[in-house]
Amino acid sequence: MSTTPGGTSGPDTGERSAVGQAPPGFDFGAYLEAARLRVEAALDGALGPERPESLRQAMRYSLLAGGKRLRPILCLAACELAGGDGDRALPTAVALEMIHTMSLIHDDLPAMDDDDLRRGRPTNHKVYGEANAILAGDALLTRAFEMVALRSPDIPAERLLRVVGELSLASGAPGLVGGQVVDLECEGKDVDLDTLEYIHLHKTGALLRACVITGAMIAGAPDDLLTALRTYARGIGLAFQIIDDILDVTASSEVLGKTAGKDLTADKTTYPKLLGLEASRQRAEDLVAEAKAALAPFAAEGRAAPLLALADYITSRDR
Amino acid sequence: MSTTPGGTSGPDTGERSAVGQAPPGFDFGAYLEAARLRVEAALDGALGPERPESLRQAMRYSLLAGGKRLRPILCLAACELAGGDGDRALPTAVALEMIHTMSLIHDDLPAMDDDDLRRGRPTNHKVYGEANAILAGDALLTRAFEMVALRSPDIPAERLLRVVGELSLASGAPGLVGGQVVDLECEGKDVDLDTLEYIHLHKTGALLRACVITGAMIAGAPDDLLTALRTYARGIGLAFQIIDDILDVTASSEVLGKTAGKDLTADKTTYPKLLGLEASRQRAEDLVAEAKAALAPFAAEGRAAPLLALADYITSRDR
Repeated sequence: MSTTPGGTSGPDTGERSAVGQAPPGFDFGAYLEAARLRVEAALDGALGPERPESLRQAMRYSLLAGGKRLRPILCLAACELAGGDGDRALPTAVALEMIHTMSLIHDDLPAMDDDDLRRGRPTNHKVYGEANAILAGDALLTRAFEMVALRSPDIPAERLLRVVGELSLASGAPGLVGGQVVDLECEGKDVDLDTLEYIHLHKTGALLRACVITGAMIAGAPDDLLTALRTYARGIGLAFQIIDDILDVTASSEVLGKTAGKDLTADKTTYPKLLGLEASRQRAEDLVAEAKAALAPFAAEGRAAPLLALADYITSRDR
Repeated sequence: MSTTPGGTSGPDTGERSAVGQAPPGFDFGAYLEAARLRVEAALDGALGPERPESLRQAMRYSLLAGGKRLRPILCLAACELAGGDGDRALPTAVALEMIHTMSLIHDDLPAMDDDDLRRGRPTNHKVYGEANAILAGDALLTRAFEMVALRSPDIPAERLLRVVGELSLASGAPGLVGGQVVDLECEGKDVDLDTLEYIHLHKTGALLRACVITGAMIAGAPDDLLTALRTYARGIGLAFQIIDDILDVTASSEVLGKTAGKDLTADKTTYPKLLGLEASRQRAEDLVAEAKAALAPFAAEGRAAPLLALADYITSRDR
């Protein structure tokens, strides 16, 4: 499967401190680390004493496996951009990471991508067996909805219900699942640009969109901000995938942390293959610029600084 | 896996028209058939033109595979008992059947119960492959939440959010998934009565409870009715399992529609094994009586007639 934002191949915090149009005083590295710690603490508290204990272990193993936590951080940042208190979006941020984790556990199964390693550790089914891995994924998916419906105090029901709706669309047939099915069907086939973008926009893009939309919904954001955030999420999601494809062609394995050229070897359709290297680079730049421009009307008093910096961060890579 | 309510081994409509305390004028057979047709129509309309088409087919194959639709009918009947219009509970009723279907698809997988047949047809993974079966299940689970959050018009958000909460608890680690994990862990082991009841109360009981609770929630039922419905659901759910166990010991294969004595052969713990045949029968009767008694305070003007009749119907079997 493709590398996704927040995977192991991105840069470490601060390695390239690109802050876009963020104000000079904004310390993105510190913001990112503080947000990550808030998310980790919330994730740690989101799983109770499940019965049986083995189910809890299988859920925790993948949910608390580290990573940059970019999805939940996008959610908090969007909530704050919309004038909300990020802490009130924490249960939803946790829900988003649970859905992401579920998709990784199920994608790694022998019947799907058959991966033995994830973030340098054995995948869930290698440790707990296939049955428990499938069920741990199912349990994380349902817990995500529980986080929003039953563990999000003091937020109007109308807003939470909209969040539930957005999460269901992002994780089901119209989002994640649809993208994964098309991706599996296209294995070993030549696909056109429309199909390639369909896969990315659904397999990774839908959940990224849900991250910023739900965060803003928690804060009661107006429709024009939600529209801008959709453009933002589309831009950074596609740009990330394009850059990932470019790196696979150009970077050395050492820098990338995975076998370079793997996509070419697997005869996988990539942006460079369809558009050429230079046009792919240009397209990624355009998308990031579009993403950031969409937020410009909402950037007063530096409130968009985290999302602007995140746009550069997510799409920046050593090359 | 155990036979669950609504599976192929129950009696046909009207075969035993036990109506409990229902008023003499109540035609249960007609009620059941009319409700089933409403549910079938709603199920048929709940899946849109998914992309890819193969995903839609895999979802439809199992969702529209027939069956008695007892779970959605319980939901409609509970909504009506609480004074609501059953049609307003239809999206939630559909959601419940989607969750039930998802659990069957995932339970049948090679990594779990490895079943090739379900209701006389090849199981989902035999037709569409394991990857698509896992993903079709995931898509049905998320669509269930979409049905409640985005496809339930004109119901207060507070009520729908409570429904989402109830569904998430019933289908996740505190419900279905937890029960299935314990069941898998107990395979081939002697278990005590507490564990046996834990499995039944979670693997099948939690969703039955959600059926009546969410139907009543849609109608804005007061807490005392919700409490009564929990007792009702617990009673019919456990009684069904006990009777299923009894039949497995006593009935001929022909009547039962499956290989009689299969549980004994598989050295599976059953109620007759733990309690003896006579005490098991008594316990089932007591549970059905408890279930019906719980509804007595709400039975004025025959409004409880469908649920009372359903209690007898679900737990009645040829023997």
